[in-house]
Formats: sequence, C-alpha cells, structure tokens
Amino acid sequence: MSSAEQKNQTIIFKNKPAILAGYSIVGPYEGEGRFGTCFDYVMKHDRFNEISYERAERKMLEHAIFGAMDKAHINNPDLDAILAGDLLNQIITSSFAARCLDACYLGVFGACSAMSLSLILGATLIDGGYMNTVACATASHFSTAERQFRFPLELGNQRIPTSQWTVTAAACSILGKNEKKSENSEKKGKEKDELNKIPYLTCATIGKVVDYGISDVNNMGAAMAPSAASTLLAHFRGTKTKPSDYDIIATGDLGKLGARILRTLLENEGIELGAEFFDCGEEIFNLSKLKGTMGGSGPGCSAAVLNSYILSQLQKGEAKRVLFVATGALLSPTSSQQGHSIPSITHAVEIRVD
Amino acid sequence: MSSAEQKNQTIIFKNKPAILAGYSIVGPYEGEGRFGTCFDYVMKHDRFNEISYERAERKMLEHAIFGAMDKAHINNPDLDAILAGDLLNQIITSSFAARCLDACYLGVFGACSAMSLSLILGATLIDGGYMNTVACATASHFSTAERQFRFPLELGNQRIPTSQWTVTAAACSILGKNEKKSENSEKKGKEKDELNKIPYLTCATIGKVVDYGISDVNNMGAAMAPSAASTLLAHFRGTKTKPSDYDIIATGDLGKLGARILRTLLENEGIELGAEFFDCGEEIFNLSKLKGTMGGSGPGCSAAVLNSYILSQLQKGEAKRVLFVATGALLSPTSSQQGHSIPSITHAVEIRVD
Repeated sequence: MSSAEQKNQTIIFKNKPAILAGYSIVGPYEGEGRFGTCFDYVMKHDRFNEISYERAERKMLEHAIFGAMDKAHINNPDLDAILAGDLLNQIITSSFAARCLDACYLGVFGACSAMSLSLILGATLIDGGYMNTVACATASHFSTAERQFRFPLELGNQRIPTSQWTVTAAACSILGKNEKKSENSEKKGKEKDELNKIPYLTCATIGKVVDYGISDVNNMGAAMAPSAASTLLAHFRGTKTKPSDYDIIATGDLGKLGARILRTLLENEGIELGAEFFDCGEEIFNLSKLKGTMGGSGPGCSAAVLNSYILSQLQKGEAKRVLFVATGALLSPTSSQQGHSIPSITHAVEIRVD
Repeated sequence: MSSAEQKNQTIIFKNKPAILAGYSIVGPYEGEGRFGTCFDYVMKHDRFNEISYERAERKMLEHAIFGAMDKAHINNPDLDAILAGDLLNQIITSSFAARCLDACYLGVFGACSAMSLSLILGATLIDGGYMNTVACATASHFSTAERQFRFPLELGNQRIPTSQWTVTAAACSILGKNEKKSENSEKKGKEKDELNKIPYLTCATIGKVVDYGISDVNNMGAAMAPSAASTLLAHFRGTKTKPSDYDIIATGDLGKLGARILRTLLENEGIELGAEFFDCGEEIFNLSKLKGTMGGSGPGCSAAVLNSYILSQLQKGEAKRVLFVATGALLSPTSSQQGHSIPSITHAVEIRVD
C-alpha cells in the first residue's frame, strides 16, 4: 500500500454541499442495538406489511426517501435527482423506488459502500453547480440478501462464526447548496432547535478496487479490511490529516473481525486508530443477543448509522469533523461459485460542521 | 409526458470535456453487421479463449479499457478513475475489470444505459475540475446474459419474435480536459491524421424512471421506448433544439419494434424523427442473417456503436452534432418472476466537434 508513486484519490468540494436532512428506517433487531433510539423509524416486523421481502425493502427505501425529503422541507418538484444503489440483482430496490419520484435517477453500485458512493457523486453534482437538491439513498434487507446470496431462509442454515448479518435498513440523505454562511448571521438568534448545525461535505476519497485474495464468502470483514485500509491511508495522505483530527471515523460493515484487521493493517503503516474509530457493522446490533455473527453488513448498515447517530452528533455540534468510510465487497454468487476471490472497495467522505 | 410543470433534466458542461479516444471490441455476429468494419476488434469466437463466458466478458472489458487508454496515450498512472457498469448481478464484469487498474473506481448501474450514465458522471467529474482523465466503460455478452436473465443456453429455447439478442461487446471512452482550443492553432499544421477532430460533450439530459406497465420480458423495446421518448422530449425542451439540429440521433437498443414505437410516441407530441435517427439495436446485426429477433440489446450494444462508427464520424467531421441516447430496462429476473412491470430509463449525451 505504501508504494513510491501514489495517486491522489481525494477530491475537494469547493462549495461544501450541505446535508439538509437524513432519515433512517430499520428492522426490529437493529432497533435493539446501540443506535436503536437514534433511528427515525423502527419497524415492528421486517416484512413491513408487504407480501414479499423484496417489496418490503423497496417500501423501506421509499419511506426513507420521502422521510428525508419531508425533514428537509423538499417537495417532489424541488428534488432534481436521486442517486441510489443496493445489493439486489440489477439494484431493483433503488430503480423501483426511484419510479415514484419525479426526479432524474442515477443508479450506482458499490455493494455496501453505496451510501458514500452516492454521496460523493451527489456532492459533485451540487458542488459543480449542475443541480440544487439531490437525494442519496440505499437499502438492504436480511431476508432478500440471504436468499439471493446464500441459502433459502427456510433451510435454517447454521451460520459460520466469521459471517455477518445483513442489516435490514434504508436511509437517505438530502444534499443541497450550502447557504449557511450567508443566512447564518440572521438566523442564529431565531433558531431554538436543538439540532441547529448544518453538516456539509468538504472532501471525499474515492477507493480503488483492492483484492487480497480472500475467497471465503463467510468472511467479508477480512475481504474488505484491506480496502478500508487502502482508502484511509490515501485519505490521510491526500488531506494531510491523522485519525485524531476526526471526532468520529466510522467504517461501514467490517464487523468485529474486519475492524480488528483494519486496526492491525493501519498499525503496520504507523497509524493508530483511537477512540474516535468505530465500525457500523460491529456496533449496530446487540451482539450479546444476536449471537453467532461478527456484526452487521449490507449498504443499509452504515447508511442508517450515518443518517441517525452520526448526523445528529454533527447537528448538535458534539462531533465537528467526521470521516464516513463505507466499505463494499464486490462479489456475486456467480463469481464465488466460479472460484474467484472477493474484490473490495471503500469510499470515504468527510463531513463537518462549523 | 407533456404536463404543466416540467423539470429541467439537462445539465450543461461548461468546459466541454473531450472524448480523447474510444475503443470497441465485439463478437463474430456483431462483426457481420452494418458497423462491422468500424469496430477496433472483432473476436473470432465469443469465448475469447477463456474457460467461462463471464471471464470472456471481463477480458473483453479489460481489452476495451486498455485499448482506449492506448489510443489516448494514457498510461495507468495518468488515469484518475474508471466509471463502469454492466448487466451481470453485482456488476462483476466492471468491478473485476477495475481491479487491474490503479485508478479510483465508481460503479454505476443503468442496465443498457450504462454507457451514457458513465459518460454523464465522468464528464461532471472532469468538467467540475475534480479529475483530469477518466475511463467510461461497459460490456455485455450474449451467453452470460442469456443464462442469467433467461434460460440455460443448452436448452436451445426458441426465441419470441419481439425479443432482442444481447450484444457481445465491450467499449470504453476516455474523457479528458478539453485543451483543444489553446493547442489547436499550433497543432493544426502538424496533424496528418485523417481523424483529427476531438469530440467533446456539451450537455446531457438525465432520465427519470418511466414505466408504462409493460411486463413482457421478451419485449424490451416496447418497455423502453416510452422512456426514450420522455428523455428526448426533455432534451429538446431543455436545449431548445429539434431532431434536425443533429446529424446523428442514436438510441441504444430499442430494436426494430421499439424504434418504431419511439417514432410514433414522438409524432404524437409533434416531433418527427428524420434520417438522422437510427437505433443501435436495430442496426448492429445483419437481421437477414440473425433471424427471429428485433435486434441487439445490452449495454455493449450502444456503447460499441458510439465508440466506433459514431466517434469516427465525429472525428472525421462527417457528423458535427450527435445525440447519444442509451436506454435501459431496469428489471431483474426476481422482479419479473414476482409479476412486476419493467421500469426503464434513458440518458442522453450531446457530443459535438467544431
């Protein structure tokens, strides 16, 4: 990872697009975890009154998009575009959810890194002056992922200790122009809301595909950790920062084992992750209750944590500088069945408040 | 489609990113069609000396990416990013191909609209000043698509008359900064190359998801035509142009039937497509030889035609203004099996030479 010629992977957002609002909806297990009280909506049942889990996942995503738009006071005609992606084949959750919006649709695929991928591309559309308001969204569902990637649920297969549990969650961030600076001075006196700071995106580090040859589909954390390390190193190098410069560094769904591997990989490069670091996958479930797993995975995992706990920490000013680092394993059942290893990718986004 | 409030779906590229080079590789059937002599490489056998069709598809994409980089005189260290997507589950062709590049990777999914989707996002990255050189690429393969979306090849199923034939092709465009204006005057005298004009992107119209309720997976042309009509109307409205302002309007893989439906839909809105219009799907095969199909489909279809025939027409100055309109059907086997209709999307990119 530390070679002679190192490419700049970091892009700077000159106009610092704002996160106008975020919304998260999760399943019952996720509601019992560390961030349970932070989510906007905890479903009582993960079928969400639909006839299939695929329909439930789509309804969750629609719910998250409209929830975020509502919080940001954005109506359908004011939304320029939606950027979304998910885990299902041909990202049907995103495409079908986008159908109910009168907005341009840009589909993305980064597996569990979908949230940071859509944020990066959405931010460039606003920062570059092409659009005014965009939604960045993603979703995942344990029961749709399980039957697509692994086994029919009805089999009741035992889980391998290193495996992760796909998070049932959808989340959406609304990005808009950063008009804070001009308005801030007048507004300051009037605002009574506890959540009065507007987070904005300052820069992003786009990942390269990294593959250390891990081919065990029940050990995604190990497959993705080298990619997380690669992007974090590129980010620290590109921005001349170190972990302690951030109040929160949140990786997405490495799980307990993957997070430990990431710490070790960075230590080998002389970088120590401190108390500012946590992994959304490791933290989202109450692992003493949900046994036999390393934690959560799926794009909904880090997306839901970003659009609940992390965003509220920023809005309250309790965190001023956050590095959101979603990770993705770019495999498919076909690639695994044909004996290939698991290429991974990690995209990092820096979010700040004044 | 013609309602009172109509959103602006068109974005303008102020700095007019240049298409530095394009490369296309196709299978034997595609080599026998109208554009056969335009492609950079026609494979003798569609397995491309690999042990699986999935591997062949990936190798084709790698071949196209490196081919385009070579034509543009871009080395691996000079390529900032690759934006790519394909039809396979979890876009494994793109992700595995990106693994062999030392460049940032942004995965996109727009089904058969992947080429224009990656061009639009790639162009904003360059136009907005975030990057200098990006590759935009896609691929599809008849034999991987057939077994993933339809039936095992070994069954030898009969084809339904309205069905389309997935094109075996990969293509890549290299986008870079438009430095023509400054250099042009000096260079003009020196250039002897027949292909001496550098095409550039002026604007793009991003599609919304359109669904007219077609659920017949063997009639993609009918499913996608309303989406093509929607984006074309938005483009003509947003840019105050009409079809005859363009030398080429090339839609991507509507096929013979879909192209006819598109003409009718636009006629109903008072817009006549003339001789400048053709559909890449209708034209890519020699339909008198490849019987029982409406033409080609798959993201490789329009991508290969763009990066061969269309690009060379621009480079020679025989076409000065082109509208490239790739269309995508956003279904998956799961969504179809669960009885859903086929949402579609179309993204249009305007390419010009001076």
